[in-house]
Amino acid sequence: MHNPGRATALRFAKAYPVVLLARKTESFQDTVSEINDAGGKALGIAADAADPQSVRAAFDKIKAELPDHKLAAAIYNVAAGFVRKPFLELSVEEFDASIDGSARGFFNFAQATLPLLLDAVSNSEHAPTLIATGATASVRGSASFGSLASGMFARRALSQSLAREFGPQGVHVAHAIIDGIIDIPRTSAFSANGGVEDGKISAHAIADSYWHLHSQPRSAFTQELDLRPFVEKF
Amino acid sequence: MHNPGRATALRFAKAYPVVLLARKTESFQDTVSEINDAGGKALGIAADAADPQSVRAAFDKIKAELPDHKLAAAIYNVAAGFVRKPFLELSVEEFDASIDGSARGFFNFAQATLPLLLDAVSNSEHAPTLIATGATASVRGSASFGSLASGMFARRALSQSLAREFGPQGVHVAHAIIDGIIDIPRTSAFSANGGVEDGKISAHAIADSYWHLHSQPRSAFTQELDLRPFVEKF
Amino acid sequence: MHNPGRATALRFAKAYPVVLLARKTESFQDTVSEINDAGGKALGIAADAADPQSVRAAFDKIKAELPDHKLAAAIYNVAAGFVRKPFLELSVEEFDASIDGSARGFFNFAQATLPLLLDAVSNSEHAPTLIATGATASVRGSASFGSLASGMFARRALSQSLAREFGPQGVHVAHAIIDGIIDIPRTSAFSANGGVEDGKISAHAIADSYWHLHSQPRSAFTQELDLRPFVEKF
Amino acid sequence: MHNPGRATALRFAKAYPVVLLARKTESFQDTVSEINDAGGKALGIAADAADPQSVRAAFDKIKAELPDHKLAAAIYNVAAGFVRKPFLELSVEEFDASIDGSARGFFNFAQATLPLLLDAVSNSEHAPTLIATGATASVRGSASFGSLASGMFARRALSQSLAREFGPQGVHVAHAIIDGIIDIPRTSAFSANGGVEDGKISAHAIADSYWHLHSQPRSAFTQELDLRPFVEKF
Repeated sequence: MHNPGRATALRFAKAYPVVLLARKTESFQDTVSEINDAGGKALGIAADAADPQSVRAAFDKIKAELPDHKLAAAIYNVAAGFVRKPFLELSVEEFDASIDGSARGFFNFAQATLPLLLDAVSNSEHAPTLIATGATASVRGSASFGSLASGMFARRALSQSLAREFGPQGVHVAHAIIDGIIDIPRTSAFSANGGVEDGKISAHAIADSYWHLHSQPRSAFTQELDLRPFVEKF
Repeated sequence: MHNPGRATALRFAKAYPVVLLARKTESFQDTVSEINDAGGKALGIAADAADPQSVRAAFDKIKAELPDHKLAAAIYNVAAGFVRKPFLELSVEEFDASIDGSARGFFNFAQATLPLLLDAVSNSEHAPTLIATGATASVRGSASFGSLASGMFARRALSQSLAREFGPQGVHVAHAIIDGIIDIPRTSAFSANGGVEDGKISAHAIADSYWHLHSQPRSAFTQELDLRPFVEKF
Repeated sequence: MHNPGRATALRFAKAYPVVLLARKTESFQDTVSEINDAGGKALGIAADAADPQSVRAAFDKIKAELPDHKLAAAIYNVAAGFVRKPFLELSVEEFDASIDGSARGFFNFAQATLPLLLDAVSNSEHAPTLIATGATASVRGSASFGSLASGMFARRALSQSLAREFGPQGVHVAHAIIDGIIDIPRTSAFSANGGVEDGKISAHAIADSYWHLHSQPRSAFTQELDLRPFVEKF
Repeated sequence: MHNPGRATALRFAKAYPVVLLARKTESFQDTVSEINDAGGKALGIAADAADPQSVRAAFDKIKAELPDHKLAAAIYNVAAGFVRKPFLELSVEEFDASIDGSARGFFNFAQATLPLLLDAVSNSEHAPTLIATGATASVRGSASFGSLASGMFARRALSQSLAREFGPQGVHVAHAIIDGIIDIPRTSAFSANGGVEDGKISAHAIADSYWHLHSQPRSAFTQELDLRPFVEKF
């Protein structure tokens, strides 16, 4: 039972050295160890995506540690800490936190990774790929989800815009709408879809779809797909 | 040839006292004078929507100057100053400016106006109305429009969420997608749609559609409509 | 308590002679009488929209009876009789009936009315208008609503296509998504939205929004709007 | 250079016996031979999807020839012969032909295949899968594309509805929006996207994405994805 970041790292580590970024080292250290212990190559760096300088410092470190490596894929997976509450009880700080994690962080991440992805276009097996993880709130502003939806709509807007700008340059920019509860330790107490088996999304399945996106040839890029459990209402 | 803020103010001033907020007094002073000179009632207040304190101060002033008035309608019309340029040339400050004007400002404006709109529900002729002005970039992330689209998608997300939360409480929250160039002094040099007559959107027509939204009974609220010139490609 | 066809006829009869088409005369005869008795001008013709010859015959009759009149507006409002049931219990005849009423009928109606609307472009007060009534099923294929959604998605597709082709020629083509139960005699037993007042859509409100669409100047056409009760979940 | 039907058949024939249905035997005979010659198992049956009896007869034949086989996947790939021309020059027969191929045929195909897919749910490696191929016209009614869009919107509506009804029963129903010109013999003369390499969609890439859809576990079904060349405007 892995979170999608870990599952995706494990999946891509079969083919590439991987770098994991997160605000806290405990978010990635087990995954980094697991990959390195299994003979793969992984590096973890603590960074705050919403802070452009922190992101820049992280990529300086990446370039120093992996000087000869091209960037094959970059996946933005930050879940904005979000508070579900009546709109009039929200603070502007809560709104800002949603924008920071969902959109501003993705802006910084895309600015750091796209030059490296562009560099890799000419001699990569698969088209260099930038994937942003979305959610139900990326396409629906539900009541009491205003701050989350604002950030996630913005992330999707940026993903679309980047696909239109960088696709013709050979970089595959995709957005995945994760519509359901992911089966991770933090959600183990939630009874999704009446507790039915497979009623939560397997993080490995997300990772497999991300790998499929990465493996698509440039004649047939997917910009957006959804992923949801078979029993999910939508 | 008016901008939509002015045209909307003139339209609503036929029925109500109106308050115009803008960062700079020159954005509203002519309109305020025109309404007051014609026997209506208008008030202009300089405020920065992206700054919660500035918005709060503006509404304190409104309550002092118009103590007995209910809020019939609130229209958020801020056009985020935006720079169209390749993504990798954008600064994070430009991204922030788009979010500030398009989304954070609307968040602050909605927090200030919704309590007053709720107060007016029980004894108003028309349902109290909160309208946000959108654009093509509200539903499409075009290449080189990433910062604009991020902010405008976020504004639309919040508008949807507020409609779902406050509609059942009797407040009509609507979003209008303005898909085309508005016929205002600033755009007079642009040749929209080959320069054909009526190829730009009349600000008065926007105002009339906003008044129509305001006049809809609560049995039939429109949450979203588009407005575009007859010759506009879409 | 009127159905939308009747309410719309009454609204437009304030400005124009109106013609009502329906398969059965009892669907329009009361409305025709009411308009004529009140000093307006109305004509009812029995016709089956899904049958091109029946539609042609109806328009031959209209041209004979109203030789000097231009067509100001044409509204397609047919509700396809539809059966909600599991997909594997549907017959292909039920599927065909949905397509016939929702899409094929609109195709025939548009072919009959667009030449007349085009004729009226150059000297009408308002842009000649073709409105198609949609529903929740126009934008969502719900379980057990497959036949209805197929027809209604198709109607919306055709409405969009016609807007893009005939808008630049001066005809306003619009589509209204009626998202909720309309307050008509046939639905009086349904308790929509917990029976709350105004929880069903007033047909008069629909008619007013259709008139607003008709009155929009060509610099600011709405192609699509939604209409739903303030308490409707969406 | 294969059409998507052939490429998909070749891809799925690596795992399963495959049956190809088409109106004309020449549409499938080469593919059937190629699969059988290579040691796979393929069967071709002439059938008209728009005709329920023809579809039923085809499936009777399938059950007789492959008595012990479960249906793992069913792919509806019919391209409705379509005429791009001004709306007022279209005949109702051309409209009907679009509906027949795009929607009515898919209705019949789904009614024939879903019972077999349901039968296969309990003991299949991958969730039984029903895929419908869509197009740009599935989500956009362009000028002069009204008949095509009507049929393709309807196909998408039905696909959505079936996903919601049969997903919870374990059948994966998906819709793929093919947004671009497919690289097949018939399109070899078209210069898509300025003739750039990979400017047309590889049918093999479509087949690979269809196989990926089929391989998704039921905890993470994709209902809809798009596929387009990296240089395609959208």
